[in-house]
Amino acid sequence: MNQRIEELVTPIKDDLTSGAAELALQAITALRALMAEAQHESPEHVKGLLVEAVQALVQAHPAMAPLFHLGNTVLQATKDIRDTPSLIQAADVALDQFETKLCESAAKIADQVYNLIPPGELVFAYSFSSTVVSGLLNARARGKFFRTVCSEARPSMEGRKLATMLAGAGMEVINTFDSAMGLILPQCRVAFMGCDCVGRPGIVNKVGSWLLALACKEQGIPLYALAGTEKFVADERFFEFEDHERPGSEVWKDPPHGVRVLNKQYEPIPFNWLAGVVTEHGILQEGDIEKYISKMEVHEALRIEGAFAN
Amino acid sequence: MNQRIEELVTPIKDDLTSGAAELALQAITALRALMAEAQHESPEHVKGLLVEAVQALVQAHPAMAPLFHLGNTVLQATKDIRDTPSLIQAADVALDQFETKLCESAAKIADQVYNLIPPGELVFAYSFSSTVVSGLLNARARGKFFRTVCSEARPSMEGRKLATMLAGAGMEVINTFDSAMGLILPQCRVAFMGCDCVGRPGIVNKVGSWLLALACKEQGIPLYALAGTEKFVADERFFEFEDHERPGSEVWKDPPHGVRVLNKQYEPIPFNWLAGVVTEHGILQEGDIEKYISKMEVHEALRIEGAFAN
Repeated sequence: MNQRIEELVTPIKDDLTSGAAELALQAITALRALMAEAQHESPEHVKGLLVEAVQALVQAHPAMAPLFHLGNTVLQATKDIRDTPSLIQAADVALDQFETKLCESAAKIADQVYNLIPPGELVFAYSFSSTVVSGLLNARARGKFFRTVCSEARPSMEGRKLATMLAGAGMEVINTFDSAMGLILPQCRVAFMGCDCVGRPGIVNKVGSWLLALACKEQGIPLYALAGTEKFVADERFFEFEDHERPGSEVWKDPPHGVRVLNKQYEPIPFNWLAGVVTEHGILQEGDIEKYISKMEVHEALRIEGAFAN
Repeated sequence: MNQRIEELVTPIKDDLTSGAAELALQAITALRALMAEAQHESPEHVKGLLVEAVQALVQAHPAMAPLFHLGNTVLQATKDIRDTPSLIQAADVALDQFETKLCESAAKIADQVYNLIPPGELVFAYSFSSTVVSGLLNARARGKFFRTVCSEARPSMEGRKLATMLAGAGMEVINTFDSAMGLILPQCRVAFMGCDCVGRPGIVNKVGSWLLALACKEQGIPLYALAGTEKFVADERFFEFEDHERPGSEVWKDPPHGVRVLNKQYEPIPFNWLAGVVTEHGILQEGDIEKYISKMEVHEALRIEGAFAN
């Protein structure tokens, strides 16, 4: 990999405590830096850099749909341009537009979260999602009082990041280990999670979301996934999370001989276990998803070979 | 508390990685030591020591029924004795009998576990239970090959103790974090857990067991609780686990201001989520439990005041 691209992508790849929307914002910053440094290069070279950077970003977190859509948007916006200044400008415009869309989606979602929080009650939030954080902070800022319960979210412990951020904003937080969900959920009135990807088969999110959703279903607690439509994907991309596995040493540093440590990151959750997907277009149910899946052609550098390939 | 009793009980209280049967064996060793050192004391003093030690053991792990039954058995066996040598002898006999019963139960349970493991398949085991370990090791020693999947069991990580022990015996083990249960269980054919307490309302075990049981029910995987009848309790003792909470610092050492860290240890699991309770009398269902609950009178030092009190 190009050394500069590696420098820019590695921090995003190794960031295991940020959600998909937050990493997409970081990816925008990385691509802007790459473009700014490329103004004296040939257009072919700049296009090559863009393709390599986008592929590296998508491979860094293959379940995170916003990285894919961001990359595809930039590649499509620049593919037919033949001079470097125009190419860089087109990339910048695409990056700006995507950033605006991400921020506007988050704001519209936050407004809806306000209405879903019963005042004075306990609210459960899983893993870390900047969309969930902005929803909770917005509700608090608009005068709604509630306490948030969150779990650690092993192995990366991004639940502690959530707890720290909310407590830092003056909110009361209860934190516990992940397997204690069943014990604390009966006291919660609503649950929220971010997600990495939404498609017709369901949603994909951090491992543990399946258990959370199952427990919420069992206990009759509405669970909402918060996701701008930049997380919606067509069927062929939905299962990209399946083969993604991080090193076992992130879970158990020195396991004894004979112990294989499994460190999967993502899992699918069926739609009918959720109360809905909160998007910038409102709270969607399973049947609403398809119409919001992007119809933008997939750039050849991002196409998937195999059974589902175009 | 008597200093010697504190010395003997503290290691048992602070042992968060051993199961109830294993800690009962350690408690037997502690009580034997206490009796051996008391031979020149008055019978009143020896009885006072026994009461104090037994109360401390029961309070150390209030959900662990074998500690209660062990303590009650020794107190009942000695309560009417008026000279020190006879008292110590009666205590020793009671301790020996309880130890024999624990070991015989474990052996009979292990034999039944053998029949429940499908050869060549993945077996899930939760938390740490010496009864589960002996069942799995016995099955392997009798020539059954299988792989065991276990999770960490935060916050005490006793799942790593299980993994290490099985791997040390040459067995293949897969370990992952607790919230990844939902991801790995579909590949398992059977699941086992120990338990701390069995009563008419259900079973009590390490936090996380409720999620495991729910996930097993959802996925059609038979989950067995392994428990000798020394874990069976009457209704008034069943809910003793509820108020038991360990320091939050064992979960998160330095949480920021505003974050309360919850560290509950035990939770109840309904019977009808289990395939059965494997005991020394066979695999029991909900309706079988009552007849195996000990009818032994509860020593006055161990009676519970309140709504359920005798």
